[in-house]
Amino acid sequence: MPRYALLIEYDGTPFAGWQAQADQPSVQGAIETALARLDAGFAAGARIAAAGRTDAGVHGTGQVAHADLQRDWDPFRLSEALNWHLKPAPVAILAAVRVEDDFHARFSAHERRYVFRLTSRRAPVTHDRGRVWQVLNPLDADAMRQGAAHLIGLHDFTTFRSTMCQSNSPVKTLDEIRIEEHQIPQGREYRFYLRARSFLHNQVRSIVGTLERVGAGSWSPDRVADALAARDRASCGPVCPPQGLYLSGVGYPQDPFGIDRA
Amino acid sequence: MPRYALLIEYDGTPFAGWQAQADQPSVQGAIETALARLDAGFAAGARIAAAGRTDAGVHGTGQVAHADLQRDWDPFRLSEALNWHLKPAPVAILAAVRVEDDFHARFSAHERRYVFRLTSRRAPVTHDRGRVWQVLNPLDADAMRQGAAHLIGLHDFTTFRSTMCQSNSPVKTLDEIRIEEHQIPQGREYRFYLRARSFLHNQVRSIVGTLERVGAGSWSPDRVADALAARDRASCGPVCPPQGLYLSGVGYPQDPFGIDRA
Repeated sequence: MPRYALLIEYDGTPFAGWQAQADQPSVQGAIETALARLDAGFAAGARIAAAGRTDAGVHGTGQVAHADLQRDWDPFRLSEALNWHLKPAPVAILAAVRVEDDFHARFSAHERRYVFRLTSRRAPVTHDRGRVWQVLNPLDADAMRQGAAHLIGLHDFTTFRSTMCQSNSPVKTLDEIRIEEHQIPQGREYRFYLRARSFLHNQVRSIVGTLERVGAGSWSPDRVADALAARDRASCGPVCPPQGLYLSGVGYPQDPFGIDRA
Repeated sequence: MPRYALLIEYDGTPFAGWQAQADQPSVQGAIETALARLDAGFAAGARIAAAGRTDAGVHGTGQVAHADLQRDWDPFRLSEALNWHLKPAPVAILAAVRVEDDFHARFSAHERRYVFRLTSRRAPVTHDRGRVWQVLNPLDADAMRQGAAHLIGLHDFTTFRSTMCQSNSPVKTLDEIRIEEHQIPQGREYRFYLRARSFLHNQVRSIVGTLERVGAGSWSPDRVADALAARDRASCGPVCPPQGLYLSGVGYPQDPFGIDRA
């Protein structure tokens, strides 16, 4: 059966997360329902596999999944047909490509990229509601960068993962945390760019929630190093809410989409 | 009575427009309802005046209005109280300032700035739904810039205003149309920045809708000059939809907010 990789964008607001669940709307379920309109295998219950299983309220701008279809499709026609059947869900197939049978959206991936958007201002957000985490007071970006520096590299991230995390090991390599500061009307937006081979459950939200405490002045940057060294979930700062988080890209040894996806 | 200027941001999606109308949700109505919780004059029917009366679905990021209140308010506390009472409407008071009695949000303004966001890609927009106008094919930004150049300066804009426009004269000076092109995942976004002392009804949407035809190759850039010279509404291109339009700023001889609002 021909295998296709799908590049997927979605607004996570109306979904209980990526993963299909009985009686709950999911991004995976929306795409599989659209595939079932085109393909007998999916009509009979075939599933797609994705690079990252995002939580409820988390968004995607560069999610990747793969699907095995029963017949050959022109990739452009496949993406157009899926987008047609996905309406009106806020899920879009940005691209579809034919891939080799040994391509696996999850297991072939060697890099995941996340962006977290954190807005600081007094007035409530309007256009970005559900798309950023808002705090009321300005943050010290340099202090957050100093705190973040302690997390780069190979570490036991027990402090920064959910107690529900099913990963075999808490030891991961975090390749990058870059923090950009942007002026917005009467406030500031901080964008956190994180990059790793893979992430633990709630790792990004645990890190950003902790760094926000550093930016607010409640934590010294060095307390991040102490929290990491403690290897104790109780040492983590507050886990921040999901709506500022975006799975922005997935890296493969050979990019199936042949494009640069920042 | 002390007069206050309000700097206002709103998502126009749920509103029938800025202007208060019976039995229709409006941005003005939402703000006046919040003011009525604070001030006996507004509880008795006082009104606010705004720099620009945006249409249904049009957004604001830098709208300005003024209100006469019955007692002195600390401006910060006024904006906080209004934001509290505005919940959950997607309207935010970004700033409030005390102004002189001769300040008028509409009549003192000497410049209005609008932004129009036009997205071109095949896949449906997800996060920006209701916030951009989407077309399916890429546009030629340079051709649109050549077309736009014909509109800069003092002209009779009869072609580019609604037949419902109540302005006394169709003669206006358009100071700037700047077009930026941004890469987005699997597509492009074109941002049109327009600046003038004042605009006619539907002028921005008539201009952008016409320039899109130029960008798509259906119109030559010079046909924009011919359409302008015709002074005939029938010569205009299609008026584009409201959801990509933002009132982004208002200029006054002395900026009451003392900030640079781009």
